[in-house]
Amino acid sequence: MARPKLHPPFFFANLAVPTGIPAYIVVPRIAPRCKQAAIRAYGATLVPCEPSDESRAETAARVVQETGGVMVHPNQEPAVIAGQGTIALEVLEQAPEVNALVVPVGGGGMIAGIAVAIKTLRPDVKVFAAEPRNADDCYQSKLRGELTPNRHTPATIADAVKTSIGENTWPIIRDLVDDVLTVSEEEIKRATRLVWERMKLLIEPTAGVGVAAVLSEQFQAIPREVENVCIVLCGGNLDLSSLTWLTDLPGDGD
Amino acid sequence: MARPKLHPPFFFANLAVPTGIPAYIVVPRIAPRCKQAAIRAYGATLVPCEPSDESRAETAARVVQETGGVMVHPNQEPAVIAGQGTIALEVLEQAPEVNALVVPVGGGGMIAGIAVAIKTLRPDVKVFAAEPRNADDCYQSKLRGELTPNRHTPATIADAVKTSIGENTWPIIRDLVDDVLTVSEEEIKRATRLVWERMKLLIEPTAGVGVAAVLSEQFQAIPREVENVCIVLCGGNLDLSSLTWLTDLPGDGD
Repeated sequence: MARPKLHPPFFFANLAVPTGIPAYIVVPRIAPRCKQAAIRAYGATLVPCEPSDESRAETAARVVQETGGVMVHPNQEPAVIAGQGTIALEVLEQAPEVNALVVPVGGGGMIAGIAVAIKTLRPDVKVFAAEPRNADDCYQSKLRGELTPNRHTPATIADAVKTSIGENTWPIIRDLVDDVLTVSEEEIKRATRLVWERMKLLIEPTAGVGVAAVLSEQFQAIPREVENVCIVLCGGNLDLSSLTWLTDLPGDGD
Repeated sequence: MARPKLHPPFFFANLAVPTGIPAYIVVPRIAPRCKQAAIRAYGATLVPCEPSDESRAETAARVVQETGGVMVHPNQEPAVIAGQGTIALEVLEQAPEVNALVVPVGGGGMIAGIAVAIKTLRPDVKVFAAEPRNADDCYQSKLRGELTPNRHTPATIADAVKTSIGENTWPIIRDLVDDVLTVSEEEIKRATRLVWERMKLLIEPTAGVGVAAVLSEQFQAIPREVENVCIVLCGGNLDLSSLTWLTDLPGDGD
């Protein structure tokens, strides 16, 4: 009997649990409940931490010590970065006419992997980072020329990019990412809703960050030869029970 | 400057407005606001009617008389039925391994077109209609062997299939559709939410009717040789501002 094919939540693809190997996933307490439920549904043990990079690091170190596990960082681990670079291979294969990629940036693993692949194979293609203005550590780092993490836990609806870029992703981003575009919370919400209503894709607000960047005035300054833009819609983990911000927005239906 | 490609709302593909030709679209007053807004956004004139097949027919006849327009029925018009049959051509081209198609049925234009195409080209492929139990005119018609419209405006969340099959679609459905599967409102809601959460596709509940049918116990009785099932997700016109029924459902996040 055939069943509809179910896509695994992309966000956790890096942390998939091979049969029989126990996995402990350190997750901020405030992470969307659907993400926490998905981790448990895949058979992993969820270890909650406070919503800061420090608490995450401390908690993960403790878990490694207690379990003898191997640390797999979600965005600074080179194998994870390389794995996310295969997104670029797929884009180049399926849309060779692409002139630019726009990728939301949190820890920077996805954009670092993509930038390495793109600039190796097609250096003519631009790579832009998209970031919430409320969590603009990547923008600040590029501006100052040095790694400048967020000082406090950022307040943004794009929960998957609250984290800062790190020691491994920063040099790649510094050297290979063309520019960083920042967007407001309002722009993120509108872009997310636009994708829902018109493309019928249920992305999470973090994926809306890239769409918001392309729709922003800032993006109008991009050179004219950039005609074909690929936005990486980097996740669809959405708490359907907590979409209260939706009703605050004027939409097509209003 | 490239913009994200926006998919037109599929439901109104039949009624698209060619440049310069005025179009009057008769729509039940209670139709989702997003559908009404989409009709206006495409440049058509919206003419409201009461939520019954009779009121729709009367209102449309009046519009034709007043404007000298040509009547294009959304599901009984042969050209519309034939156009919707091209869905089957695409399915056979993209998934020749298909053994069965499941199609939600309202007026029956989509399933009639699909059934004609499938049974002509690949008579071995099954065609199943999926219908809300609260709007089961197609099921009743097949059972009795005669066209049996809904007596009252049905109460179902699948608003696009409240209408009954008609004079042109009934004989095709009678002769070419293998079976009709009916589902409850609860099943429709759960199936719709499943598609949102796991496939990340923002379908409207009417499209969830087909998914619900495949997930139902009834479907387990389908012959074993039916391995590859194609469900037509027939629409994504969803009022995002009125998803109150969502919070009533226990989901992955709870």
